[in-house]
Amino acid sequence: MNQELYKKLLELSPDYKMNYLPSISVDCVVFGFHKASLKVLLTRLKGYEDWMLPGGYLQKDEDLEKSASRILEERTGAKDIFLTQFKSFGKVNRSEMAFDEWPDDLWHKQRFLSIAYYALIDFEQVTPSIDFYSNACEWKDIDELPGMIMDHREILDKALLQLRRDLNYKPVGLNLLPEKFTMPELQKLYEVILGKELNRGNFYRKMKRYDILTKLDETRKGGAHKAPDLYSFNLDTYKKALESGFQESW
Amino acid sequence: MNQELYKKLLELSPDYKMNYLPSISVDCVVFGFHKASLKVLLTRLKGYEDWMLPGGYLQKDEDLEKSASRILEERTGAKDIFLTQFKSFGKVNRSEMAFDEWPDDLWHKQRFLSIAYYALIDFEQVTPSIDFYSNACEWKDIDELPGMIMDHREILDKALLQLRRDLNYKPVGLNLLPEKFTMPELQKLYEVILGKELNRGNFYRKMKRYDILTKLDETRKGGAHKAPDLYSFNLDTYKKALESGFQESW
Repeated sequence: MNQELYKKLLELSPDYKMNYLPSISVDCVVFGFHKASLKVLLTRLKGYEDWMLPGGYLQKDEDLEKSASRILEERTGAKDIFLTQFKSFGKVNRSEMAFDEWPDDLWHKQRFLSIAYYALIDFEQVTPSIDFYSNACEWKDIDELPGMIMDHREILDKALLQLRRDLNYKPVGLNLLPEKFTMPELQKLYEVILGKELNRGNFYRKMKRYDILTKLDETRKGGAHKAPDLYSFNLDTYKKALESGFQESW
Repeated sequence: MNQELYKKLLELSPDYKMNYLPSISVDCVVFGFHKASLKVLLTRLKGYEDWMLPGGYLQKDEDLEKSASRILEERTGAKDIFLTQFKSFGKVNRSEMAFDEWPDDLWHKQRFLSIAYYALIDFEQVTPSIDFYSNACEWKDIDELPGMIMDHREILDKALLQLRRDLNYKPVGLNLLPEKFTMPELQKLYEVILGKELNRGNFYRKMKRYDILTKLDETRKGGAHKAPDLYSFNLDTYKKALESGFQESW
């Protein structure tokens, strides 16, 4: 147990009791995509070897939906990230192993549910920074995750499952790809998120049906082969699809 | 304000403070399907004109995932209903209008988040019953909903949206249709849930791709037209699809 951290949390406990709702914590799963690689933003508490999702608590006068981005910015420095709530985690003993050794006089030792949020951003746009409670904050490759405390690995896995499911009714790619991109580049984004290779013809037809792409009057020069067509997102149809979801299935 | 209800809640407040987690409530959206009609199970508190979702609180020694079905049974008599968590609702003032007139000494008047669950069942299998707190518990038609308290209409609407989205990766129909059914009957179930008519050919092809149906060696006799083919669910592939989700899109 890190004594410096314990002293600080004990000192803060009355303030937390006064200004934060009991029983409720908020955790953030931030996926970062850049150049065909998928990562997740993790922090590490002082005195711990295992990593955790950036998280915090809900203020008594704060709407739940506003808490996640505030907490994420306080813990990691990542600003203006739009997070989507996907599930709450509430096993009775979910934090027991991780905080057993902490004294009971800490506000932070009570039973908390975790209300979990996820986001997918370009990880080059965020420079992780540590706060008082942590000694590390880093992007970790999704295929080489370190040990994680409590049920945070389960939360992360569920977030990835949800992100993949959401691809069935929400468009993805804006702010992750350059303004002009090729169909293979868009397909690569989907393949990295889904963790598997996709059939080129099926992918092309599916994207056409979604009607979110504008084919540009230019091609990418430079390769030995036929120059590939360039596309950009049609912001009108893309945003409409974000709001109402693809209805192509039915 | 109903005085009988107030007296009971005041009497129960110390017990709730001792045995239930603060800040957290659980609400259940139970959709009922039967013979081409979709309903939802609502209750009404004593002294209120508007209706509410059946809901309750999380016990200190209870896993969140187990709370919803316990609460549903206590409030409505509906047993062994498997509920799926879909979203938590946490606006600061979500209960203000409904409970303004209640005295502050009630445990029940604090700020609660609602962790919401939904289920889809055959409504003929449930006979709604009232508990001490309510004066009514009824199946209401989804197209003719009464006024609802707090943000419960928003929760219900989100549940219906989620149910519709879940049709994209989860099978539906087991325990809702008779053991042997025709393709038009299955299509009607989807149309009632989705609230719109579907193209017959597309629907047929989609169901074939899902690979959850067994075509039986019998037809339904009796009509003037060609006797329609009968199907049953293939329990192996159906349950596998329930667990891992349809991957047909990718």
